[in-house]
Amino acid sequence: MSTTQRRIEAVLGETDADRRRRQVIRKAAALFDKNGYHNTSMDDIAAAVGLRKPSLYHYFESKEEILFWIHQEFIDLIIERQVQRDGKGLEPSELLLGVISDILALMNTHRGHVRVFFEHHRELSSQYQKIIRAKRDFYQDQVEAMVAAGVERGDFRQVDPRLTGLALFGMCNWAYQWYRKGGPRSSQEIAEFFADLLLGGIRATE
Amino acid sequence: MSTTQRRIEAVLGETDADRRRRQVIRKAAALFDKNGYHNTSMDDIAAAVGLRKPSLYHYFESKEEILFWIHQEFIDLIIERQVQRDGKGLEPSELLLGVISDILALMNTHRGHVRVFFEHHRELSSQYQKIIRAKRDFYQDQVEAMVAAGVERGDFRQVDPRLTGLALFGMCNWAYQWYRKGGPRSSQEIAEFFADLLLGGIRATE
Repeated sequence: MSTTQRRIEAVLGETDADRRRRQVIRKAAALFDKNGYHNTSMDDIAAAVGLRKPSLYHYFESKEEILFWIHQEFIDLIIERQVQRDGKGLEPSELLLGVISDILALMNTHRGHVRVFFEHHRELSSQYQKIIRAKRDFYQDQVEAMVAAGVERGDFRQVDPRLTGLALFGMCNWAYQWYRKGGPRSSQEIAEFFADLLLGGIRATE
Repeated sequence: MSTTQRRIEAVLGETDADRRRRQVIRKAAALFDKNGYHNTSMDDIAAAVGLRKPSLYHYFESKEEILFWIHQEFIDLIIERQVQRDGKGLEPSELLLGVISDILALMNTHRGHVRVFFEHHRELSSQYQKIIRAKRDFYQDQVEAMVAAGVERGDFRQVDPRLTGLALFGMCNWAYQWYRKGGPRSSQEIAEFFADLLLGGIRATE
């Protein structure tokens, strides 16, 4: 590693161990996506990152702990993107387009994380589930609040914010089942189509 | 079993063995939903239907075969409902409401089947996957054709039938992640809200 790289990481606060942990999380997510969580062992993960098994256990004490950190990375990332958009004075419809674009973009960059998040939350211990559920609910509340704000302003008709949020999440999240990178439409084109459909469906007509 | 019941079943063509097989499929789907496919053994299934294990193997040669039949029942049922609506001269928007209602209704009656269908198709052998995929594609094609027909008639604006179909499936299928029987809204109320949202988003404006 170059001196410059070391300096950058010192500023970012990321240590070698942090970087290694993130690499394990990323590789494990890809293996879980490809072969399934239950069909992937700690041996497989160690081999994929080029670690011996005792070294892997130095970073994570169990496969479940890795599973938890995949969940964490995913939900933290999507909340972070949402928070960055916040306070920019965007209108509800622009905020909703932002949310839709974020989720679709993750299908390109975090496919494994996405499947794990949607299919394996029940495999987490209740303590871990509680943490993830709290963050997920926070994010869901933010989206519902955008819908409610649009209704309040008269941009949207009197739709139920909760069901509208669930429709949005359904449309977007479901893409993990069918979206393929390099397909005929980019994730951003799909996001814009979905936003157009949803906003068309809730827009107030005078 | 009463004589009347026997007569009814003779007419329906369902034998004791058929009924037993359907019972196994239903119980297995519920167990897979509750505890996960990988955490459910043939012993668990045998116990749940009150069979000894050798008798269970008389009906199904493996857990994977049961998994396949859960997929079959689910996709056959939804295709059957679609076919029954066909040829009734309904308009594209009415047909789409029908599809949305069918999917949401299954969240009440076939919860376990739904999760299995969406999360465990990769566990099927390639031969089985091929059969299920062909039926699923047939159904998806039907829904896209409804959208295309609506565009053709000028009821809908020039939307992409494929992406519109995927938006519809996303909204509806995703309900298996959050819908609870006995919640504040019935599956039919949710279906009507979703149909209203989607049709509002694609309806042609003059």
